[in-house]
Amino acid sequence: MGRVFAPTDNTQVRRKPERASYERQEAYAVLDEALVAHVGFAVDGQPFVVPMVFGRDGDRLLLHGSVASRILRALADGVRVCVTVTLVDGLVLAHAQVNHSVNYRCVMVVGTARLVDGDAAAAALTRVVDHVIPGRSAEARPADAADLRRTAVVELAIEEASVKARVGPPAAPSAADADLEVWTGVVPLTVVAGSPVPDGQGFAPDRPPASVSPWRRPGGG
Amino acid sequence: MGRVFAPTDNTQVRRKPERASYERQEAYAVLDEALVAHVGFAVDGQPFVVPMVFGRDGDRLLLHGSVASRILRALADGVRVCVTVTLVDGLVLAHAQVNHSVNYRCVMVVGTARLVDGDAAAAALTRVVDHVIPGRSAEARPADAADLRRTAVVELAIEEASVKARVGPPAAPSAADADLEVWTGVVPLTVVAGSPVPDGQGFAPDRPPASVSPWRRPGGG
Repeated sequence: MGRVFAPTDNTQVRRKPERASYERQEAYAVLDEALVAHVGFAVDGQPFVVPMVFGRDGDRLLLHGSVASRILRALADGVRVCVTVTLVDGLVLAHAQVNHSVNYRCVMVVGTARLVDGDAAAAALTRVVDHVIPGRSAEARPADAADLRRTAVVELAIEEASVKARVGPPAAPSAADADLEVWTGVVPLTVVAGSPVPDGQGFAPDRPPASVSPWRRPGGG
Repeated sequence: MGRVFAPTDNTQVRRKPERASYERQEAYAVLDEALVAHVGFAVDGQPFVVPMVFGRDGDRLLLHGSVASRILRALADGVRVCVTVTLVDGLVLAHAQVNHSVNYRCVMVVGTARLVDGDAAAAALTRVVDHVIPGRSAEARPADAADLRRTAVVELAIEEASVKARVGPPAAPSAADADLEVWTGVVPLTVVAGSPVPDGQGFAPDRPPASVSPWRRPGGG
């Protein structure tokens, strides 16, 4: 696996190419910090986009769902897929309404997925749990044979991929706009965890485990 | 426009139908609270999923981009589209790894978009600005003729749509799992705005305007 993704017709960023990157490590940093992927596939020309929890294991994206899920069956059958993962980092306020923007980091991975089974499936599910809640797999029961019969796991190679990001302040205003009395700048946004809420069915409800004391955004600081 | 969406082959929720809703007001509450939509379309069977800022005006979703954008041109040409908007509300910790989940609210809208132009386009851009930063349109310059020549705006009727959500604690454990010494419950997640950061190019940098003092998540409390 190369350090840099080779852009293809599918992944070459055409609009605002200065915002694009094909660096594998940049893509992984975004993937590792995100909780949800938006998974797209088409059936007879009709696209569908579905949010899914995911994980990353090296150069593979991992997705899972019920064996009864149409989406998982389509993915396991090798339909073309686009997995997009987006982090929203801030609101960008400019002089002109059209120059308002959002700071974001986004990874798009396209390709075809394939089924993972047996021990590799159980290991993949553990990776997904630890992706969302780092360290949680050490606290919760791993998948057993019955779990695996009900759960489909697929992997997608992270190979045909690109990163697109916007960072920083608004673009410089036109001379006419610069004279307007408008505040401009950025409002940073972050995802914050509240206090864990025990459900009363588990062990030691008043003592949340290390994985959520506190929960840290995966991959983040 | 009916109070309830009529489910179609595209929008009928098959997996976990107990999590589905077709109530228009529920969909609007999710759309109004979200910042980014994931827009899916297919070209020769290859799906693409792209994050986009959006707005809602009554029964229409509003999207925009450069007139040079391939995506906007495809949307304006009436390609089939799926717009998915997801809010992540919490992490769900169960006894078993496979029963971990995420609390979320998600709206999927499918259909074909159409171009909006002239005064309606300027009004749509204002709606998008106010969607992301409520009240901001009163502070920033509206789109002028030059802006509109560079910007494509499309609308998508919110008619073929569904809502899917997971709320609440983990599912009840099996008898065997219930005996395990595992903490279970939910970690709530929210999006939080930091202090506005002036860029030094605007007016009164030390005095952020009402729209971001503080910024409130659109539609939220």
